[in-house]
Amino acid sequence: MTIKKDYVRPLDLKNGRIDMGHGAGGRAAAQLIEELFLKAFDNEYLRQGNDGAVFDIPAGHKLVMATDGHVVSPLFFPGGDVGALSVHGTINDVAMCGARPLHIAASFILEEGFPLAELKRVVDSMAAASREAGVPIITGDTKVVEKGKGDGVFISTTGIGVVAHGVNVSGANARPGDVVLLSGTIGEHGVAVLSQRESLEFETTIASDTAALHTLVAAMLEASRDGVRVLRDPTRGGLATTLNEVARQSGVGMLLEEAAIPVLPQVDAACELLGLDPLYIANEGKLVAVCAPQSAAAVLAAMRAHPLGGNAVRIGTVTEDPHHFVQMATRFGGRRVVDWLSGEQLPRIC
Amino acid sequence: MTIKKDYVRPLDLKNGRIDMGHGAGGRAAAQLIEELFLKAFDNEYLRQGNDGAVFDIPAGHKLVMATDGHVVSPLFFPGGDVGALSVHGTINDVAMCGARPLHIAASFILEEGFPLAELKRVVDSMAAASREAGVPIITGDTKVVEKGKGDGVFISTTGIGVVAHGVNVSGANARPGDVVLLSGTIGEHGVAVLSQRESLEFETTIASDTAALHTLVAAMLEASRDGVRVLRDPTRGGLATTLNEVARQSGVGMLLEEAAIPVLPQVDAACELLGLDPLYIANEGKLVAVCAPQSAAAVLAAMRAHPLGGNAVRIGTVTEDPHHFVQMATRFGGRRVVDWLSGEQLPRIC
Repeated sequence: MTIKKDYVRPLDLKNGRIDMGHGAGGRAAAQLIEELFLKAFDNEYLRQGNDGAVFDIPAGHKLVMATDGHVVSPLFFPGGDVGALSVHGTINDVAMCGARPLHIAASFILEEGFPLAELKRVVDSMAAASREAGVPIITGDTKVVEKGKGDGVFISTTGIGVVAHGVNVSGANARPGDVVLLSGTIGEHGVAVLSQRESLEFETTIASDTAALHTLVAAMLEASRDGVRVLRDPTRGGLATTLNEVARQSGVGMLLEEAAIPVLPQVDAACELLGLDPLYIANEGKLVAVCAPQSAAAVLAAMRAHPLGGNAVRIGTVTEDPHHFVQMATRFGGRRVVDWLSGEQLPRIC
Repeated sequence: MTIKKDYVRPLDLKNGRIDMGHGAGGRAAAQLIEELFLKAFDNEYLRQGNDGAVFDIPAGHKLVMATDGHVVSPLFFPGGDVGALSVHGTINDVAMCGARPLHIAASFILEEGFPLAELKRVVDSMAAASREAGVPIITGDTKVVEKGKGDGVFISTTGIGVVAHGVNVSGANARPGDVVLLSGTIGEHGVAVLSQRESLEFETTIASDTAALHTLVAAMLEASRDGVRVLRDPTRGGLATTLNEVARQSGVGMLLEEAAIPVLPQVDAACELLGLDPLYIANEGKLVAVCAPQSAAAVLAAMRAHPLGGNAVRIGTVTEDPHHFVQMATRFGGRRVVDWLSGEQLPRIC
């Protein structure tokens, strides 16, 4: 009677590759989880070693749950990678509900043949993002699909958070007269990812803005707990689509000032080259806030005082409009409608 | 100035297909979400229409969070499909922590070209499973990858639940002398899925056992709140791997009675044909419980009184064993070690 008490040899994180056995739930899967995921994400919840993680929450709060799949291509881009993005994206979704993110769950779908060294890079980046944000990855799952049935790694992350008393943030809360604030320049994430596409590769110094925005949100709510009515991060579809969503959800219109919307000169140049409009390009470290008029100045000041809101600006106002149009006063003194993104301008940007 | 106020035409759920635009975050994505997902899953949380869902929880409880990716192939199989599985799987992960599942978040990764009619079938099945279980899908996300970079649909679901006072269930809690219970016959799910594989197709009347086990767990905890020490659903890797995981986690051994482990004759026959061992085959509607000796009879009776535990049996005991071996007394009077699953016996079974 012989039996392997432990793994025969450690995972080859330099030259090894994902094989179907890593997803079969047996010894190889257990080894991948222990030697890669648990080691990188290590915390008391994961150490429970169960099908889920048990945790306490502060009493009497409302909770928020948000989930996001991450299929960005390529996996690595200037300023970030799918791992960091998967942590930031879900933290931001939770934060945009006015909540303080507590925990993240991560589900990995790996493609057979994916190099373990690249997986380690992704996982280490997730671990770093999670630690920096103070939001641990407390439970997870790994599946493997055959070569040609996936694309390296897809990561679905789900976040849980708590809403402080008196906070009531929703896309449905914008009212005519409210002020629209933007936390900084737009378009960097999308342009940074596009610059790495094989079909398109171009030289640029633009890095993704990917970042966890929960401390920025906390600072804003500190400045005015009930004056912040809507929070959204303009990811897929960009600022234009996000504001259209809010306009529809709240049953209002918006009037933006084109000149007020900050865009880096390099992003402007890249967009011109590619025939894209920065208003429709994904961001991963910016937010839009709709604030009560009497709170806007305090919230804007709080944003500017935060490292992730140094370039925050007032970009427009909420209007009464039965058509729920987002309109924009252009630099040339005209006015145009800013429509939703149609079609597939930028696939797999996050 | 013209602008589409609504979608030009409704989603073609008969002959339409997923295109990259459905993942771009613009109008097409919004239409897919509204006309398919929101309609099928409809509930007050989804209607909030935000990046995440806000909900209340009963005060003073511990919470559980669990996540699971679902990549089963084929998507449809006797007794179930990826949609039902994605709801049951996550409900079960939450329930195996001794918790009452409250809510589910769902992240979809769709392949370009996937027929909308099939997606609707999957989504309707999820909706039915969720309603039947009383666990609503409260938030979600949809991404689209190019044809050949995915495989129809992958669904990652995350569940949240509450643990009642006095419940302390963990894979680390088994103690020598405890009793090992199994809720019913093993191997149906894996065999049902395998029977549909193109390379393997065989005639069988075996249907997947996929089911939500949270009400069974509730009945068991009702019978003995502190006598239920470990709960696990033997999915990937089967009963053998699950028991090995528990043995290692608890630092104990186990001794099983082969004759006590129920296997349907059709499953036995299929396994013989395929050269597989039912002990290693995935189940999606069964659970293993380790109980304190004085509680085992009451828990077993509660299982048998539940529709999903009619065939529940005592299959063995927990032993003291520094090697953490799972051993089995065979039908022939011998004794053998039941090892972990090695390698990739059954890829993409869930």
